[in-house]
Amino acid sequence: MLQAIRQKKERLIVGLMSGSSADGIDAALVKVSGYGKSTVVQTIACDTLNYSSKIRELILKCSHPETGRVDDICRLNSLLGELFAKAVVYIAEKANCELSQIDLIGSHGHTIHHLPLPEKISGVEVTSTLQIGEPSIIAERTGITTIADFRPRDMAAGGEGAPLVSYVDYLLFSHPERSRVALNIGGIANITVLPAGASEEEIIAMDTGPGNILLDQLVYTITGGKSRYDLDGERANRGKVNQRILKKLLEHPFLRKPPPKSTGREDFGETYLHWVIEMGRGTAWDDLITTLAEFTVRTIVNSLEKFVFPYHHIDELIISGGGVKNRYLRRRLEESLPRQKILTSDHFSIPGDAKEAVAFAILANETLMGQKGNLPRATGARQRVILGKIIPGKSV
Amino acid sequence: MLQAIRQKKERLIVGLMSGSSADGIDAALVKVSGYGKSTVVQTIACDTLNYSSKIRELILKCSHPETGRVDDICRLNSLLGELFAKAVVYIAEKANCELSQIDLIGSHGHTIHHLPLPEKISGVEVTSTLQIGEPSIIAERTGITTIADFRPRDMAAGGEGAPLVSYVDYLLFSHPERSRVALNIGGIANITVLPAGASEEEIIAMDTGPGNILLDQLVYTITGGKSRYDLDGERANRGKVNQRILKKLLEHPFLRKPPPKSTGREDFGETYLHWVIEMGRGTAWDDLITTLAEFTVRTIVNSLEKFVFPYHHIDELIISGGGVKNRYLRRRLEESLPRQKILTSDHFSIPGDAKEAVAFAILANETLMGQKGNLPRATGARQRVILGKIIPGKSV
Repeated sequence: MLQAIRQKKERLIVGLMSGSSADGIDAALVKVSGYGKSTVVQTIACDTLNYSSKIRELILKCSHPETGRVDDICRLNSLLGELFAKAVVYIAEKANCELSQIDLIGSHGHTIHHLPLPEKISGVEVTSTLQIGEPSIIAERTGITTIADFRPRDMAAGGEGAPLVSYVDYLLFSHPERSRVALNIGGIANITVLPAGASEEEIIAMDTGPGNILLDQLVYTITGGKSRYDLDGERANRGKVNQRILKKLLEHPFLRKPPPKSTGREDFGETYLHWVIEMGRGTAWDDLITTLAEFTVRTIVNSLEKFVFPYHHIDELIISGGGVKNRYLRRRLEESLPRQKILTSDHFSIPGDAKEAVAFAILANETLMGQKGNLPRATGARQRVILGKIIPGKSV
Repeated sequence: MLQAIRQKKERLIVGLMSGSSADGIDAALVKVSGYGKSTVVQTIACDTLNYSSKIRELILKCSHPETGRVDDICRLNSLLGELFAKAVVYIAEKANCELSQIDLIGSHGHTIHHLPLPEKISGVEVTSTLQIGEPSIIAERTGITTIADFRPRDMAAGGEGAPLVSYVDYLLFSHPERSRVALNIGGIANITVLPAGASEEEIIAMDTGPGNILLDQLVYTITGGKSRYDLDGERANRGKVNQRILKKLLEHPFLRKPPPKSTGREDFGETYLHWVIEMGRGTAWDDLITTLAEFTVRTIVNSLEKFVFPYHHIDELIISGGGVKNRYLRRRLEESLPRQKILTSDHFSIPGDAKEAVAFAILANETLMGQKGNLPRATGARQRVILGKIIPGKSV
């Protein structure tokens, strides 16, 4: 059924990601040949389609236990499906490409809830995660075979369902002689450790803590929704770190947890930010922004120092994600990691803020080719599994 | 990737259904050969695995807008996935069959919300439905390729996502010379009209209104959860119809709506039952049960008289679903439809209360074979589409 797409030498694939910041849809059109370690990727077009404030608020409302109602979730699942489909149409037009030329879509969906720690319900142990953005709608509107919902299968195999991008980091960035760490600063920040010449069994990865999630939400809140993030890190550069608050932030129990570990809005969402703002009463907003930016830097650097550097000499750090554009984050990372060469993923033809979208295009390619897409030492899964759900397009 | 399963002459398929009554999981193991009109089905084993009261209450809680929270939905999606997987293991054991011999699972999931009427959100028109019971968990626990979530694709094509079983009725029950109606009395009751020799484009189908959903919930409520339904329709047989209440019930706007149409707990759920109970203050419980049973009969018969009999002479009625065992329903249907021969689906080797589970095994077979599984005149879809999401098993 999918044979025709599998047999092509080169496939045009759209990757779609809606990150935990809930700011918009990252879409990337890539040309992929091969699979597994022979994967070659070329980014043809990428962009972010921002959500309107109304949709962003609906997403946040649906994500929160106190306000996330079943009827709103039901509607939002379809609404995001429609918007993801529109994002595919948009990115195809931007690349001057017909929809019928595109072979495959990989859609991460939007995570409205993530509960990776085992809980017992009626005697049955479960872990759970909920991504929405109905892929049947994407496949029907575009006519393109769509692979979606990658996390639940890894969790079914005992993993935390995150980080999944680490397998893609392994495919794209691992090097026979240079030891590298891939760092993505999205809503949440995560690292993939790629020792020189390592096999896929040796790759470890983890979420390090918040990336932009708290920063973006704070800027959104104090500007009354006018700004969605601290452009270029200007405000963070202006402020001063409040050491008392930073110390408190660094006491978060997630930071002490050994890997594999993953986090999200459940740990570093509105409830947490509210507590930070309460703690920061009397502090200038810019200082609070700088403090949160420094918190992101410190959680990344601490993770490296605690869980990586004792075991591996790291030559290069390859950074990606929206946080790359924040000059404060960038500068402080460089100051804090003087022994590592810091490169952006653009260096490898993966635009920094499109990396996660590109990653889900590649994970879709792996599933199409019957390849397993998780890394047990990254997610904690018992074994490697084929990720995602396949929704046939029109031409199939 | 799925080629090996497609090429088999006979496939062992498990169908799973969790109906709107939320009473349990219907599981059926069937042997299927062919596809489309050449489909031949043999039921090997079937059973219903009742939910515990705690799980049933969690399902109902998650289904209701006022109480359906995102964290509970997230957990329940995994919990039901685990229970569906256990149901597969159970039915395989019952049939003395190794899991590795089973080729495919078709899982409907449990519908916790269904909003088939178009709504505009932020300028985007959406219809939506939400089935849960994570199929990635089913595929991982059993190692069997699983096809799930059939409704959203039909809705993406403009349909109401229901009734889907009508295509299966067409495959199994349509006859060159006899005009038939297939009637399933599950939580909701639905009919498929199969004129003699009709092509798939001519098949109409519709939900007629409540099946057992109100009856079961009333019995559950008045017995404090001790009974889940009116065994054999004993209490309905004992009571008397309250004509005043029946008249009020028959004024429900859904009943006047022309087909295609579908309904669910949103129309005939707890809020509605609460209103019925309020109206019935001072009425004996048995009389209220009889009145609700008569309501089910009348909505079925009225649908036939209004939407079917004016256009087709119907020879036979093939009934299935849990309602078949309710002697009151059965007797009153026979009295009300003297010109039709009433048969149960058992007559066609489809056990009455397993019919929906069998249907989703067959729909999974159709998707596997690249066949479209909806009927536009049944669901209102603009076109026929391939239904469901494919989750690869271990052996793939």
